[in-house]
This record gives sequence, C-alpha cells and structure tokens, in this order.
Amino acid sequence: MKIRTGRLEKEMTDEATVYTSSLEFDRFIFDADIQCNYAHTSMLKAQGIIDEDIADKILDALDKLNDEGFDALEFDHSVEDVHMAVENYVTKLVGPQAGFMHTAKSRNDQVATDIRLLLRDRIREIQIGILEFIEGILELAKEHKETVMIGYTHLQHAQPITLAHHLMAYAQSLKRDYQRLDDTYKRVNLNPLGSAAMATTSFPIDRELTTELLGFDDYLENSMDGVSSRDFIAEAVFDLTALCTTLSKICEELVLWSTYEFGIVTMADEYSSTSSIMPQKKNPDVAEVARSKCAIVNGELVTILTILKAIPYTYNRDLQEITPHLWNACDVSYDSLKITNHMLLTVKFNTDRCLELAGANFATATDLADIIVRERKIPFRTAHKIVGRIVNEAVAEGIDSSEINGEYLDDVAEELGFERLGLDDDLINKALNPIENMKIRNVPGGPSPEMVQLAIDNMNIFLDDEFEKQGI
Amino acid sequence: MKIRTGRLEKEMTDEATVYTSSLEFDRFIFDADIQCNYAHTSMLKAQGIIDEDIADKILDALDKLNDEGFDALEFDHSVEDVHMAVENYVTKLVGPQAGFMHTAKSRNDQVATDIRLLLRDRIREIQIGILEFIEGILELAKEHKETVMIGYTHLQHAQPITLAHHLMAYAQSLKRDYQRLDDTYKRVNLNPLGSAAMATTSFPIDRELTTELLGFDDYLENSMDGVSSRDFIAEAVFDLTALCTTLSKICEELVLWSTYEFGIVTMADEYSSTSSIMPQKKNPDVAEVARSKCAIVNGELVTILTILKAIPYTYNRDLQEITPHLWNACDVSYDSLKITNHMLLTVKFNTDRCLELAGANFATATDLADIIVRERKIPFRTAHKIVGRIVNEAVAEGIDSSEINGEYLDDVAEELGFERLGLDDDLINKALNPIENMKIRNVPGGPSPEMVQLAIDNMNIFLDDEFEKQGI
Amino acid sequence: MKIRTGRLEKEMTDEATVYTSSLEFDRFIFDADIQCNYAHTSMLKAQGIIDEDIADKILDALDKLNDEGFDALEFDHSVEDVHMAVENYVTKLVGPQAGFMHTAKSRNDQVATDIRLLLRDRIREIQIGILEFIEGILELAKEHKETVMIGYTHLQHAQPITLAHHLMAYAQSLKRDYQRLDDTYKRVNLNPLGSAAMATTSFPIDRELTTELLGFDDYLENSMDGVSSRDFIAEAVFDLTALCTTLSKICEELVLWSTYEFGIVTMADEYSSTSSIMPQKKNPDVAEVARSKCAIVNGELVTILTILKAIPYTYNRDLQEITPHLWNACDVSYDSLKITNHMLLTVKFNTDRCLELAGANFATATDLADIIVRERKIPFRTAHKIVGRIVNEAVAEGIDSSEINGEYLDDVAEELGFERLGLDDDLINKALNPIENMKIRNVPGGPSPEMVQLAIDNMNIFLDDEFEKQGI
Amino acid sequence: MKIRTGRLEKEMTDEATVYTSSLEFDRFIFDADIQCNYAHTSMLKAQGIIDEDIADKILDALDKLNDEGFDALEFDHSVEDVHMAVENYVTKLVGPQAGFMHTAKSRNDQVATDIRLLLRDRIREIQIGILEFIEGILELAKEHKETVMIGYTHLQHAQPITLAHHLMAYAQSLKRDYQRLDDTYKRVNLNPLGSAAMATTSFPIDRELTTELLGFDDYLENSMDGVSSRDFIAEAVFDLTALCTTLSKICEELVLWSTYEFGIVTMADEYSSTSSIMPQKKNPDVAEVARSKCAIVNGELVTILTILKAIPYTYNRDLQEITPHLWNACDVSYDSLKITNHMLLTVKFNTDRCLELAGANFATATDLADIIVRERKIPFRTAHKIVGRIVNEAVAEGIDSSEINGEYLDDVAEELGFERLGLDDDLINKALNPIENMKIRNVPGGPSPEMVQLAIDNMNIFLDDEFEKQGI
Repeated sequence: MKIRTGRLEKEMTDEATVYTSSLEFDRFIFDADIQCNYAHTSMLKAQGIIDEDIADKILDALDKLNDEGFDALEFDHSVEDVHMAVENYVTKLVGPQAGFMHTAKSRNDQVATDIRLLLRDRIREIQIGILEFIEGILELAKEHKETVMIGYTHLQHAQPITLAHHLMAYAQSLKRDYQRLDDTYKRVNLNPLGSAAMATTSFPIDRELTTELLGFDDYLENSMDGVSSRDFIAEAVFDLTALCTTLSKICEELVLWSTYEFGIVTMADEYSSTSSIMPQKKNPDVAEVARSKCAIVNGELVTILTILKAIPYTYNRDLQEITPHLWNACDVSYDSLKITNHMLLTVKFNTDRCLELAGANFATATDLADIIVRERKIPFRTAHKIVGRIVNEAVAEGIDSSEINGEYLDDVAEELGFERLGLDDDLINKALNPIENMKIRNVPGGPSPEMVQLAIDNMNIFLDDEFEKQGI
Repeated sequence: MKIRTGRLEKEMTDEATVYTSSLEFDRFIFDADIQCNYAHTSMLKAQGIIDEDIADKILDALDKLNDEGFDALEFDHSVEDVHMAVENYVTKLVGPQAGFMHTAKSRNDQVATDIRLLLRDRIREIQIGILEFIEGILELAKEHKETVMIGYTHLQHAQPITLAHHLMAYAQSLKRDYQRLDDTYKRVNLNPLGSAAMATTSFPIDRELTTELLGFDDYLENSMDGVSSRDFIAEAVFDLTALCTTLSKICEELVLWSTYEFGIVTMADEYSSTSSIMPQKKNPDVAEVARSKCAIVNGELVTILTILKAIPYTYNRDLQEITPHLWNACDVSYDSLKITNHMLLTVKFNTDRCLELAGANFATATDLADIIVRERKIPFRTAHKIVGRIVNEAVAEGIDSSEINGEYLDDVAEELGFERLGLDDDLINKALNPIENMKIRNVPGGPSPEMVQLAIDNMNIFLDDEFEKQGI
Repeated sequence: MKIRTGRLEKEMTDEATVYTSSLEFDRFIFDADIQCNYAHTSMLKAQGIIDEDIADKILDALDKLNDEGFDALEFDHSVEDVHMAVENYVTKLVGPQAGFMHTAKSRNDQVATDIRLLLRDRIREIQIGILEFIEGILELAKEHKETVMIGYTHLQHAQPITLAHHLMAYAQSLKRDYQRLDDTYKRVNLNPLGSAAMATTSFPIDRELTTELLGFDDYLENSMDGVSSRDFIAEAVFDLTALCTTLSKICEELVLWSTYEFGIVTMADEYSSTSSIMPQKKNPDVAEVARSKCAIVNGELVTILTILKAIPYTYNRDLQEITPHLWNACDVSYDSLKITNHMLLTVKFNTDRCLELAGANFATATDLADIIVRERKIPFRTAHKIVGRIVNEAVAEGIDSSEINGEYLDDVAEELGFERLGLDDDLINKALNPIENMKIRNVPGGPSPEMVQLAIDNMNIFLDDEFEKQGI
Repeated sequence: MKIRTGRLEKEMTDEATVYTSSLEFDRFIFDADIQCNYAHTSMLKAQGIIDEDIADKILDALDKLNDEGFDALEFDHSVEDVHMAVENYVTKLVGPQAGFMHTAKSRNDQVATDIRLLLRDRIREIQIGILEFIEGILELAKEHKETVMIGYTHLQHAQPITLAHHLMAYAQSLKRDYQRLDDTYKRVNLNPLGSAAMATTSFPIDRELTTELLGFDDYLENSMDGVSSRDFIAEAVFDLTALCTTLSKICEELVLWSTYEFGIVTMADEYSSTSSIMPQKKNPDVAEVARSKCAIVNGELVTILTILKAIPYTYNRDLQEITPHLWNACDVSYDSLKITNHMLLTVKFNTDRCLELAGANFATATDLADIIVRERKIPFRTAHKIVGRIVNEAVAEGIDSSEINGEYLDDVAEELGFERLGLDDDLINKALNPIENMKIRNVPGGPSPEMVQLAIDNMNIFLDDEFEKQGI
C-alpha cells in the first residue's frame, strides 16, 4: 500500500526515492520491528482498542513473518521502509483490517523503539566481547607475572615492569569501556512507544504494558522527547570510540613491538601478511587495520553530533541519517574488539629481549635515587641530581648499570659538592637490577608479582559478577 | 630550581620552552596541586617515610601558599610548570628539605590527580547549573499548561501541544545530560596518586590514605593506567557536547520562533542586539552565539580523541595538550548553559500567535482519523486516506478546519468508494478544535494538562533528590 | 595464486581475512587497475624489460578482461584484492609468464595509481554536476530579477532583495566549490607508478611513458612520497565538505521557506512526503535528508585526517582504510548535488508572499537613514538613531511603513533633540517602498535587476569556458 | 557611542555582553580595520559621497591611530567590538562627523574584509615558513645523499634508501602544503567591501577603487555572498590541517627514531627534557607536543565546518564564532612549523646505526628476486617464491644476508621444484649489499645519489621561483 495517497498528488521521483530510502539499513531492525508491532498490537487488544479477533489475526501474521524472516518481505518501488513492508505482509494475510495495528502508533515512535531494541542487543554483545577479552588477558597475565620488561614514558625507557603489569593496564582500560556501556544501557533501555507522531494519542493506550512486554526499564515521559531524542545514540557511539581508542593503543604497541628494532613480540602468521614484491616482509597488517578503524568510529561520532546540532523539535528526517552510522560503529567496534583479542592472545612474547631491554638503559636509576633518600635522608631533589649526573657520565663512558658501585657514586657526589654517601655495593646492585627493582615496587597498583596477582584477583571478581549479570 | 640539571647539558631554546609550556593552563590546577601535595606529604609523614618535623614545615608552607594564592608563585624562565613553582615556593620557606615532598611521587601521577580533583568540581558546578535550569523550566511550564501551541515534525505543523509540554521535552533532555555527568563522575573521582612516574615506588606508601584525604572513591589499581589514562576526559567532554547539543536545539528554536514569520516569542532586549546599519533590527544574537558555541565543544572532543588515538603507553607529552581543551569545553558549556537558562526564562511568549498557529493548518487531522477508526471501526489506513483527501481539498478550496462537518466527510468518503460515515458534527468539531484536541491526548507522556502536571511532579522529585545529593 | 607462500607458514584466519579485506571497495578501481596494468606492461615492453611476445599476450588478456568486465574475475578465499584477481585472470590465459607484468611494480604504487585515476574521473563528474546546477540557477534567476523578497540577517528581516539576487549567491558559492576541485585536480593527476614498493626499482623503467599513457600531468618525484602520500584524498574530501556545506545551506533555506510560517516556497510533491499518521502533512523530506548528508562528508573527512595523523613513512596498511571514505564522500556529494539541483528547480516560489514579507517589517529603514544623510548631510550615526526610534515607535503603535511621512520623521527628530529634517513625503515613500528600494541598490554586487543581469552574464562566461574545458 | 540606542530599550546584561563579545580576538584585526576604514573613506571622498574636508579629518585620525596602535583604543562596557572602538577614537578627534565614515558600509562587510586582509598576511607568513623549512631540508639532504638507511613499510624493514631520499619525501609533502595555500590565497584575496549589511547600498560607491586600494585581486560579485561566505576560512584551516599532518608525521618519526630501540637519531638537548623522577631520561617532548598539536587544528576545522553547516543566508552571529578558530589554527600551525623545522635540523643522525639497520634484515631481497628475473627470464612471481623461502630459512637458521651465495639459492630452487639458477656469487652479493642496492635504484624518484641530486635541483628551482614571488 502507498502511504502517499493522502495528501500528495505526484509520486516521488525514483532518484528521490532512492536518495531518501532507509531500506539498506532497515534490514537490521526487522526483528525489532516485529517485536514492537507484536507488543503494540497485544496492548491494543488488552485495552480493547481493537477487536480481539482482528488482533489475533495480526499477531499470527507477525508470528509467521518472524518464522519466515526478512526475505519474506516484498519490496517494490512503493515501499518506503521496513515498517511499510511489514504492514503490507500482514495486510496480505489479514486483509485491510491489518491497518488496525497502526492505531495509536506512528513510524516516529516505532522507529525510535526499534532502534533502542536492537541497540541494547548490540551493546550486550559488545560488552560480552569485552569481558571475554579481559578474561583472555588475565590468563596471559597470570603466565607473565615474572616476565620483566621495560616500561616506557615518552617512548623512552622509564622503569622495569612486568608484562603482566602492562597487560593489566589494558584490562583496566577495557573495564571502564565496559562500564561506560553499562551506564549508557540505562538510557537506551527506555520505551518511546506510545509517543505516536509526537503528541501521543487520544486512544487509551497502556504504556506500562508495552514497556513490560518489550523488556524496557521505563517509558519516556515526554512524547516530543520520545520521538526526537537521539542522544542515546551519540552516547553509545562515544562509548565505542572510547573502546576503539583502547584497541588502537594496543594495536599501536603491537605494531611497535613487532618491529625489528623493538623485537618484543612476534606476531602470529595468522595475523600477518607478506609483500607482493618484498619476499622478506612480515607485516602486522591486522594490527594496522585495527589501529586505523578506530578513526572510523571517531568519524561516525562527528557525523552524528553534526546532524544533531541545532535541529528543532521534534522528528526531522535528518534523524534517519543517524542510524546507519550507529550500526556501522557497532560493527567496526565489535569486529575490531574480537580481532584484537585474538591477535593479542596469539602473539609470541620474546621474553629474553624483554629482559635485555629492561636492563639496558639505566631504567632503575629512580630507585638508586630513592635508596639515597632512604638511607642517607637526603632530599629527593639532591639524590635526583647525583643520579642524573651518574647516568650522564656512564652513558658517555659506555659504562653499564651493573658496573656502578658505591665508589663511583661517591665520586660523583663529591664532584657535585655533596658529601660521600658510603652506600653498600649490594644495596646499589639490588636497586639497579631490573628484576629486583620490579619486585620491590610492591604497593597497590605496582608491578610486583604479588600486587599484580591481587589486581588479577580483583578483576576476576568483576568478571564473575558481570558474566552473571549478562546471563552467561 | 631547575630539573634539567640531571641529564641534559643544554637548555631548551626559548621558542621550545614557550611552545611546550603548560603554564597558561596550570593556573587552573593551582588549588588542586596544593591539595594533592598536602595529602601526599601528610601520608609520607603518617607512614614515617619522611620525618615529622620536615613534613610539618612543608605542610605549613603549603597552607601559607594556599592563603596567599596563585600570585605568590614566582615564574621565571626555568620554571616549567605549576608543580615546579609550588615546590620552589616551599623550598624558599623550608630549604632544600622541601625536596622530600617529591618522594614517591612524580609529575605524571600528580598532574593526573590534579586534573581529576579540578574536573570533579567543574562537573558538580555544571550539574548544579543544569538542575537550576530545569527548576526554572518547571516554573515556566507550570504557567503554560493550557497554552496551546503547534507541535512540529519536519518543521511542518503536526499536532497541537502546549508550551508546557514542549518545555518539558527540554527538561527531559537536560535531565539525561545531568545523569550522564553523574555516571562520568564515578570514573573521574578515582585516585592515580601513588602511580609515581608509571610503576609506583619502593617506598611503603599508603594509597588508601591519600584516597581518603583527597575524597576520592577509590584508587586506580594499575600504575601504568593511572598515569596515562585520559578516557575520563574524553568522556566528560562528550557529556558536554551532549549538553551543548541540547542547548543548541533550544537556541535554534528561539532563533526560529523570534522571526517575524513565526512570531511565537519576543526575545528580551537584554539578549538581543540591533544593527549598526539597519535601525529596525532586533537580532537574537545571544541565541545565535550559544547555538554556534556547541560546535566548539564538538571540535574539542575531536582534538582530544585524535590525540588519544594510537599513542602507546604510558605517559607521553601529547597528553599535556589534552587538558586545555577540557577546561575550554567546561567553560564554554557552563557559560552557554547559564545564558541559555537566563535567556529562555526572560522570553515573552506570544500566546495568541501560538493558538492561531495551532488552529491554522489541519494539525488536528490525525484525531479526525482516529475518531473514524473508533466510531466506525474502520481500519486506520482507510481513515487516513479519507482525511488526507479532505485536507487536500480543503486547502485547495480555502476551507478552514472549523468548517468541516459530517456531510463534507461523507462526500469525500463516497468519492473514494467508501461508505458514508454519518459522524456527528459535534464530535468532528471536538476533534478538530486544537484546545479540545490537546486535552484528549491524556496518556502518560502526552500534552494534556493533567499529564504534564504529572511530569512536572516527577521532575520535581528528581530535582529535590539531586539538589540534596549536591548538598544544596 | 597465493602471495603468502613466500614468507609465512600459516594462512590468515578467515576472520582476519575478512577484517582486512579491501575487496568490497576494490570493485570501484577495477577499470583503473586494468588501465594501470596496461600502461605498465606497455612500458615494460617498450623498454625491453620483458619480451615483446609475452607483453603482447598480457596486453591481449587485459583487453579481454576489459571487455568482459569485473564479473569475469574470480574471487576465492586466497584472493586478497582486485590486483591479485586481475593477475590470476591473466595467468589463466597466459600462463605463469603473466607474472612478468608485476616486474618493477608493487601493489603499493599500483593502488596509489588506481585511486588517482578513478578520483580524477569522480572529480570531473562532480564538477560537471556543479556547472549544470549553476546553469539551472541562472535560468531561474533570469525569471526572477524583479521578484522582490526580503533578505535576512540573523534570520530577521534586513533589506529587500530579489529572488534572483539570492539565487546568484548560491551560484557564487557553487562556483568556488568548482574552482577548489579544479585546484585539487592538479594534485590528484600525478603519477606514482614506478615508485614500486617504496624505493623504485633497478629495472630501467620509463616513468615519462607511463605518465603519458595514463594521461597524468607529471610523475611524483619521490618514491617514498609516491606510495604513502594521501593528502590528495583529504584535500578532495575537504572540497566535498565545502560543496556539501553549500548544499546544506540551500536545503536549510528550503526547509525554512516551505514552513507554513514563512510560506515562501511550495515544494514539488516529487520531493515531499506525507505522514503515516498525520494526513495533512507535506514534509520536505528530501531537503532534510540532503541537509543532514552534509554531516556524513564531514565525518569522512575526520576519519581520513585521523588515520593520516602521525603515521610514519611509507606505506602502512592504515592507508587502505582511507579509500572507502573517499568513495563514499564522492557518492554522497554527487547524489546530494544532483537532488538539490532538481529539487530547487522544481520549487514553486510564492511571489505574493515574497513581496508581502519584503514590505512588512521596516526593512527599508536603512535607506531612510541613508536619505537623511544624503539630503541633510547629517552623520550616519545620527540618522541611524532617528530612524531607530521611528521604527520602535511605529512597531509599538502598529503603524505600517507606508504611513511614515515627513511630519512623523520631524516629530521624532525633535523628540531626540535634533533639528526638523523637512524631507519630502515622496522621497520618504520611495525609500520605504521595497521595490523602489531594491532598484536603487544599483552598485556592483547589488540586487538591482541591472546588476544581477551583469552577474548572470559574467557567470555565463564562466560556464561557457568551463564546459568547454570539460569537453562538453 | 552606543549603537543600541536605536531599537532596544534595555541594555544587554553583563553576562550576555561578555558571552557574545568578540573583543578578545578583535585585537588581531586592528591593523586590518584601520586599513579597511582608510580605503573606504578614501573612496567615499573620491566619489564625493562625503565632503573632502570631513574625509581628510577622518583619514588623519586613522593615520594617528595607526601610529599610536591598539592600546590607544578605549574599551568600556558599551563598546561591542573593535569597529566601534575605532569609530569612537575617530569621533573623539573629529566630532560627530566621524559618523560619515560608516556611510555605505556595515560591520558585516567590514569584518569580512578585515578577516581577509589579515588572513592573506598569515598565509604568506606560513608559506614563507614552509619555503624556509624546505630550504633547510635541502641543505641536510645534500649532506646525506650517500647515508644509507633502511626504508620502512608497515614499520618493517623494506628496502635500503638514503637519508637524503627520506628527507626529500618530507620536502615533496611540504611543497604541496605550500601550493594548497597558494590556491586558497586566490579565494581569500577578494573584496567583500561594498556589500554593506547584505544588499549593498544606494550610495554610488566605487568597489573597484577599494579593491585596488586594499590590494585585492577582485571584488565579490554578490553582496549576500560577500557578507556571509566563510568557505575561504574553512579552506585555509583545511590547508593547515594538511600541513600539520605533514609535521605530525615528521615528529612521529623523530619520536620513533630517538628511541633506544631504533637509535637512528639523537635529539638535541635543546629540544628534549628529562624527568622529575627518572634521572636517566631524555625525552623528545617537543616532538611529542608538535605531534599532538596537529590534532588541535583538526578540531578547529570540525568546529568551523559544524558552525557553517545548514545556516541560512546571510550574516548570522554564528559566523563571529568561526574567526577565533582560524587565528588559533594559524598560530598553532606556524609555531609547529617553525619548531619542527628547528628541531629536525638540529638532530644528530647516527649514520652507523642507519647502515647497520639497512643490512640487518634481508631488505635487499626484492633485488635478488629482480636479478633472477633479469638473468634467468623467470617470471617475477616464481622468483619471489624462491627468495621468500630463502629468507624464511635464513632467518630460521640465523644466516646473515652476506652469507647467501649461488649454491644456497640453487638448493632452495630445487627444493621448490624449480631448476637450478646458477647465478654468480658476485651478482648475488651486489644485490644483497645495501649500499650497492641503493645505488642501482637509479630511476626518477629513486634513492640513488644521482636521482636525489636531480630532485634537490628541481626543488631548488621551485624555491627560487617562490621566494621571488613572495618578494624575498
């Protein structure tokens, strides 16, 4: 059936029909649209707004369509969107009385409902993906609590850490990405149905019933807001940019670490490619692609925010252009999440190289300064100055950190006008040895195996709780 | 004191010093920086990491600085940032032992702490601004529960609503903007202090104590995450783009409604300007500026997300460039919120014009269709077709909606091949009269005075709760 | 054939293959890829790098593929991209000697060449679309040189103009959009072929020959730059955002002008829709969709710029993710251009309403001030003050601009402490009448029919020149 | 003087005045505003629109203000912007007749003119900065034509190049950044003056004269376009994002190359910092800051494009919010350009490490494949397969590329089912030696010293031409 016959005399041109069509993306909301129609018709029946037998025929038809799936719909030129196609399907089975299912409902509230129904599923799917990724990271971290590596600031060697500690930083970041989606879910899982075109209806509908039938937490209490608000979409897409930003950082590190120069990891062949012309190449293509796809979600967010800026109430057709960018952001994020998960967990860590780098470059110097503070009650700034000079000279003279002893220290201290420190060589060596150094950083949040185990335990509690809430 | 003396032999060039300086924005975190130093030093003292008398001298100096304010700091060429300036101040009072306050702490964890301390205040400030705006809207809405106006979809007349109903749509949107900030607050109010440079410290610090002293909900459990995560900033700025998007919509409507053509509102002189060349002009400049400033926050979000994309762990100097955009987003949002609040509440609504528009353009036609459905059990689609034709012909013939009666309806129905409907003229008039029409939309979320009062009551409960939580 | 067999032992997982595949968008560069292979092979033959008979067999196969089209290619799991598929096709016809076509060439330079070949076609296509749009605007403008309407600043009535003058503002904007694409074309039409993987080749290739065969203006003089530069893509997409911004303004005006309140235009039914629930609606859906699609191109630009930020030389797989956003930006822009063109040219302008608005609201007040300046040599600021007061009082008293005469003026002048002006009533009426008022704005760039005709003539010369250059 | 006195009865609130004020950024256009007033007044005098003696007094006052500078202006509450402040200054000297300078001019066309005048200076300044940077790069390149280093794709070793070749890739990119600004300049250097508020004027102004006096190339031929078009700003800011993207890549490479792992460069102390807690650190802070500032310009572009989207003609106050983002983009770009220039040219290249990396990792394998193609007329794909296997085995067995000889090759070929190749050991060694390998890539765009010298020569011609055009 053609909806245009009311007010307009001429058909849209083919060009305009194609240009404004939402059909390409309507496929996604097919299930939700049936669900929405089913709940609405059930409510109309329960309220006596439409006759029971008509309602039952419509519900049967919707059941049948649900079984047959999207391909049972017919799309010819006159069908603007999936809502019309569903109605046509029901009409073919039920006759013109199918039109009753549209009582007290508009495409404006229906599409808003459909999007929310689908989005909450997509959010849950991505959340579970995050939990699974964290789970994998915890497994990996457990194996590497003693694997010393160098921690970087400014991409320069900073201090020795462990691989487990580094991996747990990923886990913390992913946990927040998960929690953000949880908060957003609250604002997604609200029922706009009953808002109708924008001002509800004079039929005595029961919004609490459709809310319950559709599993929403509550209904939206203003009909104009109900049909026009899309902030829940922008918020969900922002959450995904945050998630993808986390993934892009992990991928950036894999790209870096798999260089010849860093040599920290070897990517699995399954996530690498070679060159069509350079036979020696092994390229981290998957990590590069995942790193860049983050930018796609950023772009989608900009598109959505730009559309939303300064459009007046209530429904404007502009809103239709928002949804495809939501689904694309969900797809890109989910795919990137899964592949980063699989890629990270198949990486081979070159632990010898990790240890080598940890000891290579005076990364333990801070602790030498700390020891001076502790043992000699010298202010940190003074200790910092002495150790800075030591590093400077040692680098210039090609002296390795394991060669630094008490005498060397005292010489530098005197040179700078301070008293000799008289520190024990053992103490110095302990501070400067990366493994020992890492172990003494034994405060909450620190890299020591004990503290990382604690962090793993806490994260496992979080995982258990959330898997349970997700019904897994 | 100059921190560079450790490792580097030559000074930064002036150009590089200015280029990399954060001083312009460090002013903002001055209070937070004192607070942070105070808590850290207190903890060092409590843990016996530094001597009690040294600690007390440092704490006294910090107290003094707190009293004297930012201008007590000295900034010469050698002072890189506010942290150094504060330390210099303390050093001047306490002597070199001031250096002990830097034990087990780095600028990396300190600046992350400072930003979080200030941001939570900024969030609270903006949240209170939102509550106050909603409060004002509720006042206005109470006065206009019977003020009929036209509701728009596609900027075309859709259905009669009330001004109160429209205003409550604003309130709902602002409520979600508030709640988003509440959720973000949970992720802001976490303590990175103790992460030190990136790997905690070997000193036996007490992170729970600083967490308590600084009023944080918890500490961040991974030190690498603690110094490098800035997702809380991106999230806060996203919340502000969402808020500003709400404001931009309100301002867009004020710009539209104050046109000669719409004539729905008259802006207060205090929020208008005239032209330097066109003496007759009264321009809604403030609304235009507020509408456009939304775009500034969008841009800041892009800057922040772009900086965060694909940078490896942990602290990189890139992170410094993020913070000014956060503060700017806070300023722009807060100012825009306050001014939109004041502007909206001083607008004069031209209620006669509102009523005129509500009745002008067959906006009640949907209800005529609904009545046909209800009274004659004809499917909605058929009724829609009949009413569509009626509107079409009435517009063509210049017939006003108040002139439509039962006979007119029946003629059209027959013309389209349907049976005569035989509806009562009174019933038809009731459906088509905008005031009556608005009143019968009496379902939750609807525009009827009763339902809007319910929404106002519910929103007042929300306000009371939140004002209390905010301590107001 | 599988390229992986060189270096890697295991296949990519299916998930990774799909995730990193460019096949969905490779279809677009199929023609360009054949063209590129053809030119390269011809050059290898001319330089004696490969045997003549082998070259001829390859060229014949490429010809055949060109005739058969994209569907002749076979894509199984092992085929990474269109380049491989083309090579496989040639190999099937020619045998392993087909491998010679890849001599001195890499996918890195080939894909860069393909993108440039296709993009220059897309640019030309869009440019011609712009010229055609301007052509249509000129036709419309010619008809409306005397159609007075109100010009807006701040969406408030400013000064009377003509519809033709307004339309010519669109044309000027579109002209610059055209010229920008022309400038970008220069940077697109450069040949990267011969850069090979990133460092050219030791084969004695002739880059001038492939440049000539492919119709490029020049070759890129640095091979590292040749394979990795994508600034030409960002630039082209920026040009498209500028074009779409122009279109979004036009569409915004159509949405506004077609409101009941403005009533300036009636949209053609072909570019409108009605409502599923509100039978009286006629919505400017196409204009709304076109307005919002502008935001899509903005988002694509952000994606591209974000990917490009801070990636090291030379080719990184991230670059692959850029191209789909280019093609999408081209599609969205081209479609939006054509539909905005068709929509604008089928709009019905309600000229009576235009005239009514032009006279309604003291929009001619500036000229009354100008006349006071001219006739009485009073400074503009003083005249502005007097006229401002007149408008204020007239609005308050409900006096129409046609009722203002010399006496009214003098009363106000005296009230403000100035001398009586003694202006002739005729002169005043002439200034205040919108049609007369518009005609006396007869300076270059002004709305007078004479000046608009001049602008039309100049624009026609531009069109003739450019259509000729485009070979039309 | 207060402009408001015309139409509005109440003052703007202080809050609204501050909120809408442009004063903070008006300082930038002070010189341009005087220039603009000077040209306009001169034209009014030449056309006899204002009396010669009044004109001369105004021009004298403007001269005086020009000498005294911005600080001579007075800003109290009533002064909205710099235009008013300038007029007030002139009025104080000349009396109320100063008001004549505003004849036939509006702030709308004036501010558009001012922005264009200043922007063309900013563009020239940045262009000269680019030329100077290229000049420095050429100097550095000349010294390093024989400095072999490894070229990367996917951040993996690809093929040997020279440092000069790599630097010339920077130069090519910067050249295009320069040319884009040149193209934009054409669209900036157009005169909107005479457009007045939006519809020109009835005074007989001479737009060609002001165009000439202000050094514009032409005037804008439509007054509505003249006051409202800001596409030239978006375009300029896009050019700057492109420039900053180039800079961000260079800085990214400096950050990477200065890691302990890469070791390719040592940053000058002047562009490094150390850590407050880790005395051994030498951090590339300036490069990191420059890398991230690129994102600021991206954000500014988004802000500008978002403001411009879908605002109707002509001037809206939204436009005011665009300009500060333009100036900020100019500042950030210029500063980043200069500092990247200075930083790159003071870097120490560790040429031994460069050579070591070039030979470390079979980066010359492609050429071994090429030789097999050339010498044995075997298709490239077959050769690629053989060499791929060789690399694989050599890596597995720890064999260095210098150990590969003819026999090793033949063994692998046979293993794969191909014939023995019987290549000369010398030939193989020549292909595999990175220095020899680089030299034989002697085609245009290639890394051989000869070809790089050619590229340097060509770039020098470009520099000479452009410096001359810029008058340097």
